Amino acid sequence: MPGNSFGKLFRVTTFGESHGPAVGVVIDGVPAGLPLTVEDIKFELEFRKPGRLYVSGRREKDEPEILSGIFNNRTTGSPIAVIVRNTDVISSFYEEIRYKPRPGHADLPFIMKYGYENWDYRGGGRASARETVGRVIAGAVAKKLLMLADTWIAGHLRSLGPEELNEEVTFEEVLCSKYSPVRASKKVLEEKYEALIKKATQEGDSYGGIAEVITKNPPIGLGEPVFDKMKAELAKAIMSIPAVTGFEYGLGFMVSKMKGSEANDEIIRKDNKIGWKYNYAGGILGGLTNGEDLIVRCAFKPTSSIRKPQKTIDLRNLEETYISVIGRHDPAVAIRGVTVVESMVALTLVDHAMRAGVIPLVKLTEEQGNIVQQRWERYVRSCKPMEESQL
Amino acid sequence: MPGNSFGKLFRVTTFGESHGPAVGVVIDGVPAGLPLTVEDIKFELEFRKPGRLYVSGRREKDEPEILSGIFNNRTTGSPIAVIVRNTDVISSFYEEIRYKPRPGHADLPFIMKYGYENWDYRGGGRASARETVGRVIAGAVAKKLLMLADTWIAGHLRSLGPEELNEEVTFEEVLCSKYSPVRASKKVLEEKYEALIKKATQEGDSYGGIAEVITKNPPIGLGEPVFDKMKAELAKAIMSIPAVTGFEYGLGFMVSKMKGSEANDEIIRKDNKIGWKYNYAGGILGGLTNGEDLIVRCAFKPTSSIRKPQKTIDLRNLEETYISVIGRHDPAVAIRGVTVVESMVALTLVDHAMRAGVIPLVKLTEEQGNIVQQRWERYVRSCKPMEESQL
Amino acid sequence: MPGNSFGKLFRVTTFGESHGPAVGVVIDGVPAGLPLTVEDIKFELEFRKPGRLYVSGRREKDEPEILSGIFNNRTTGSPIAVIVRNTDVISSFYEEIRYKPRPGHADLPFIMKYGYENWDYRGGGRASARETVGRVIAGAVAKKLLMLADTWIAGHLRSLGPEELNEEVTFEEVLCSKYSPVRASKKVLEEKYEALIKKATQEGDSYGGIAEVITKNPPIGLGEPVFDKMKAELAKAIMSIPAVTGFEYGLGFMVSKMKGSEANDEIIRKDNKIGWKYNYAGGILGGLTNGEDLIVRCAFKPTSSIRKPQKTIDLRNLEETYISVIGRHDPAVAIRGVTVVESMVALTLVDHAMRAGVIPLVKLTEEQGNIVQQRWERYVRSCKPMEESQL
Amino acid sequence: MPGNSFGKLFRVTTFGESHGPAVGVVIDGVPAGLPLTVEDIKFELEFRKPGRLYVSGRREKDEPEILSGIFNNRTTGSPIAVIVRNTDVISSFYEEIRYKPRPGHADLPFIMKYGYENWDYRGGGRASARETVGRVIAGAVAKKLLMLADTWIAGHLRSLGPEELNEEVTFEEVLCSKYSPVRASKKVLEEKYEALIKKATQEGDSYGGIAEVITKNPPIGLGEPVFDKMKAELAKAIMSIPAVTGFEYGLGFMVSKMKGSEANDEIIRKDNKIGWKYNYAGGILGGLTNGEDLIVRCAFKPTSSIRKPQKTIDLRNLEETYISVIGRHDPAVAIRGVTVVESMVALTLVDHAMRAGVIPLVKLTEEQGNIVQQRWERYVRSCKPMEESQL
Repeated sequence: MPGNSFGKLFRVTTFGESHGPAVGVVIDGVPAGLPLTVEDIKFELEFRKPGRLYVSGRREKDEPEILSGIFNNRTTGSPIAVIVRNTDVISSFYEEIRYKPRPGHADLPFIMKYGYENWDYRGGGRASARETVGRVIAGAVAKKLLMLADTWIAGHLRSLGPEELNEEVTFEEVLCSKYSPVRASKKVLEEKYEALIKKATQEGDSYGGIAEVITKNPPIGLGEPVFDKMKAELAKAIMSIPAVTGFEYGLGFMVSKMKGSEANDEIIRKDNKIGWKYNYAGGILGGLTNGEDLIVRCAFKPTSSIRKPQKTIDLRNLEETYISVIGRHDPAVAIRGVTVVESMVALTLVDHAMRAGVIPLVKLTEEQGNIVQQRWERYVRSCKPMEESQL
Repeated sequence: MPGNSFGKLFRVTTFGESHGPAVGVVIDGVPAGLPLTVEDIKFELEFRKPGRLYVSGRREKDEPEILSGIFNNRTTGSPIAVIVRNTDVISSFYEEIRYKPRPGHADLPFIMKYGYENWDYRGGGRASARETVGRVIAGAVAKKLLMLADTWIAGHLRSLGPEELNEEVTFEEVLCSKYSPVRASKKVLEEKYEALIKKATQEGDSYGGIAEVITKNPPIGLGEPVFDKMKAELAKAIMSIPAVTGFEYGLGFMVSKMKGSEANDEIIRKDNKIGWKYNYAGGILGGLTNGEDLIVRCAFKPTSSIRKPQKTIDLRNLEETYISVIGRHDPAVAIRGVTVVESMVALTLVDHAMRAGVIPLVKLTEEQGNIVQQRWERYVRSCKPMEESQL
Repeated sequence: MPGNSFGKLFRVTTFGESHGPAVGVVIDGVPAGLPLTVEDIKFELEFRKPGRLYVSGRREKDEPEILSGIFNNRTTGSPIAVIVRNTDVISSFYEEIRYKPRPGHADLPFIMKYGYENWDYRGGGRASARETVGRVIAGAVAKKLLMLADTWIAGHLRSLGPEELNEEVTFEEVLCSKYSPVRASKKVLEEKYEALIKKATQEGDSYGGIAEVITKNPPIGLGEPVFDKMKAELAKAIMSIPAVTGFEYGLGFMVSKMKGSEANDEIIRKDNKIGWKYNYAGGILGGLTNGEDLIVRCAFKPTSSIRKPQKTIDLRNLEETYISVIGRHDPAVAIRGVTVVESMVALTLVDHAMRAGVIPLVKLTEEQGNIVQQRWERYVRSCKPMEESQL
Repeated sequence: MPGNSFGKLFRVTTFGESHGPAVGVVIDGVPAGLPLTVEDIKFELEFRKPGRLYVSGRREKDEPEILSGIFNNRTTGSPIAVIVRNTDVISSFYEEIRYKPRPGHADLPFIMKYGYENWDYRGGGRASARETVGRVIAGAVAKKLLMLADTWIAGHLRSLGPEELNEEVTFEEVLCSKYSPVRASKKVLEEKYEALIKKATQEGDSYGGIAEVITKNPPIGLGEPVFDKMKAELAKAIMSIPAVTGFEYGLGFMVSKMKGSEANDEIIRKDNKIGWKYNYAGGILGGLTNGEDLIVRCAFKPTSSIRKPQKTIDLRNLEETYISVIGRHDPAVAIRGVTVVESMVALTLVDHAMRAGVIPLVKLTEEQGNIVQQRWERYVRSCKPMEESQL
């Protein structure tokens, strides 16, 4: 059954295999009048790109081409199709896995589902993390559109393997982590993460991590009371990312150890409105956004592709064998994963903002378009990059 | 936007408020020829019922009435509508909350979204856990239909507040926890949970907990590779349950602290087929079920309704005030929650089993109907109830 | 696969068989704050009711019961469930058809699809026109909600068998046809239709007809450019009604015989805005409503249930046999069908008005609620009924 | 709201404007193991191509490029993306219409909906018939997949302006009409149609027509009983095609003039099974396919773009003006439209065949793939083209 689309009013459909001609996305439901250029998309794609300092060896140029839906640098209300050609493809890396399914990978389940003879074994085909290019492209559009509501989304890596953030963090720090090659929100953490990455690279191993994404100023009342609660929608969005194994929001799993008198958050007056004292609920109560910061976290498993030899089965003779995955891989998918999580949060929020009529469904006025554009430009300029040339 | 439906091929729509005339469900997409009676539904409803030994004081009779879709004790392929009248309703309990939103509850977000004047404040209206009656009714049908694939679903409470299971547990023990009034899978744990519940009741407080649901013999290859991965679908299903704050499967959050060489599971030969050595992935790889046991967990927060006074705001004057929620409430929603989690797992799996054509989409043959019925009867008889009269 | 729901933002799910305990509907997506009572629903149900002057013999009381979604006579944003118990059920009429599928009916296709042993043969089960009760209930809500946009929907019977309307008709006349027992918009036509009905009743035969529904002041720009064009959505809505065999809008089939220079409508100035001279396109151009009156027509086949003996096959021995359908049936389903077509137009329009943000997605303000209520009361009072007591 | 997708299990999403970089389609839900090459797609595209003998002047090469979803000439179960670059684009033709909305066209409604400043006026943008390229590409895949059920779809032009078919026609003749430049199923009719086309071309005018599509051997029981009846699904599919103004099946509108005793079709024995004597219902009863030939018809309006001057409004000054549409246009869109109608029938049937489990949802076996391929090759060779070089 079709499973390559996400969202109801802001509907994203991705396609493309890791080693096919191109990956891409169709975004249907974007209102007319949103200023949008290929540069906006490239800005976001930069942060999920393989080939940054410590991350991955594959060097895709990731040049997006807009095929439809934009006229005179504005959306027209028609579906926006964007493709990125796959240029840095060395499929020979993948001949071995044709017979030796990689532990931790989708190889064997894909064969089980679709049949060995129909399996696109080149680089994991559709199961490759390259599939997320389309999510980030759509995420760029979603993030921009959400700026109409002055809603800002930013993520960072809360932990990497055994290292984790143990202090308070500001939204500014989180936002600026995008220029950290290991997606750390603090300098001292960055050093620890970098040391881990180096170690993993040397050992031919990899690390897991926890990504956190914070949404500042989310529209109030997003989510639907029963099955489409905001927490459920975000869970689905984020759990659909490759390598994510757990999701929580607010106090998350910790709350299961607590008493009601500890976990219930006090309702208080904040200036002229009502709010919650500690935001234990991470911005979602009764399945609806309540105006507090939206805080979600997810666990990434370590990159499954590692150089260290691992046991598997040779499909030709069903004998035990070993495989050492020598392709170019990140030692921690969680790092690039942060941008993907941000994108999924953006896709979920924009969809629900439209379901609530907070974002116009059909068209933006010229004035609304201008407001969005100004905020976006502020966003692009925000945070001082550590070194421009790293990008 | 409509948010009261779940599933694509096995489609469940629930309706009804806690203190309205009735709650109910419409199940659309059930193939014809499934043997089904009101007794099957009552059997499952029993396990989410308020009023069991230590749980809740509300004593609903929960008498389901089937309005459509069944003829001669078999499904016809038409939508199955089932309602349960609300009989034990004392709305006066709720007059106070009309002006004092309860901490931890959906009261305030509902008011923010729908307007104070449109808010059904009686017992939380649609946000009440009573809404889950419809899920369990549909879950009964889903569980039964899944028996065609010989798939069995069972849950238990892995932890309650500070107490937690620390040993291996068999599927049999998990299955039989349904007759434990605190949903414990071990006798010794049951005693600890009961002690906690008593303490909470005395203190006017409540506890959170972690539910775990295990699926034995799930069909292979369920889930779709990108957005509708099985892990994403289950996450959405389970996170949509009131009071659930986190979701994980397999190693879950723990894997974020590990190395790839530790977290990757070896692919091995098992008798005549290929499998995974430790089932670290909890039965889902690449977003698809891989034939191993499906293992999911979720965190429940403590019941928000507690007798202990808590700070809130009086909406009439926006002054600080206190509220003591004196309705009849479970000291731990997680206990009854286990059945609801099981139901959501069943709804998700049956929907995907149909998406994969593993369960017939239109009708069961007579023989298939008979197989299902035999397995269901075995299920109903399974586990020796501790004491029949407790139910 | 589920096929009992209609609409995306205003989502209607119907259930119930002709001779089961009840028929009903769940309406999900109705914004909060819409004034709504059971009387509003009964008002509309009246016009599809069997048992009016010349139509059908079945005398259902059709007493709707609202189970959810309304509090203090206003919608709350929760799903609205309404059921109507089946009270006037004489299933014995239907024992014969158990073995003799009725020509023109769904009997045989249902058996082919779902299996003979699963077939609810009592009164056509789900294929009965009684299923449309749920549509009309939902249509009442939709019509009322559309009044926020000052949009009015009304239908009449343009032709019955060989008799047809050959003059201009005003919207007023169309609206008031609801009090004509044969749904005629002109007195002289009413007499012709009545004569035909009498003849058919005497002969044990039935007639087809063409219903036309006109929408005054539809919101502009409704419909989506490609697959969800307004003409396509209306076609689906109306063709889903039992006994409808054709659909057209504007010039309809006639235009296929014309030249472009004849069929193209001149774009002209109308007061202060731009419009079309003749409204050849029936209010839809490029798949979008263009502000002109929306005009759709559909063909109803004659009632399939007739007393005249017809050839069929006895399923017990596969021999030729005859059947004379002696149940209580309308000699022209098209008459009651007009209300159902109106309802489907309303459901389609309200859904698209919400997709375009013309109707609020979450809640109506008190003022908006009042405007709607005033217009509805005007609607209820409109047209002088021929004789109150007939209803 | 998104409106560029069609189908639930075989899900088609189209994108692209007439004068943008490309048009294209993503097909999600195609089972793995279907043999498919770019040649299969080109074969079908040929029959909707502008630039055939009498039809249209635009000469697109229409070279499809497959971007994903195919590996080793077989589908993999991943979404299939296909694009066609727009090469023969002369936008200057369209500068005039920027201020002068064309009668009969979507220009003005698009401006009303999306705003003048966001309107892609080049060639009608998304409202152009060029959008149907994606439908025909997807239709090729659908037609091929349906061959697994030995289901064949073919269409012809039943009438063009005043000329119409008045004799019996065989399925063979209908099938072979694809090689007629005017889509006539009889030689004598072809001559009449050609004469009309010549006349229209000379006069700068255009003609409407009626297309009919016949499906041989459709799977039985397709369609869902209530809202998703096969007649409703086909109506939506076909009414979504640009320029279509009416839809009917079987006896269609004619039945509205008839009596029940005339319109009811006798149920009879046919060899070893039960069937209907005259197939008055066009293969659909109770909303379900009944195994008889599926027969649908639709009305096309005359091409709106005509050289003859027509009245419109100049948007710059709101004064009356004239426009003569001088682009390269078919004098009868109905001709190329036949292939598009066939495609929409195929998309609808394949989707429902999957909903009924008649076509595998996940993968075809090798043997099934071979059967399909053999039938497809027979289809490609069928009918002797009048002259190969015309294509």
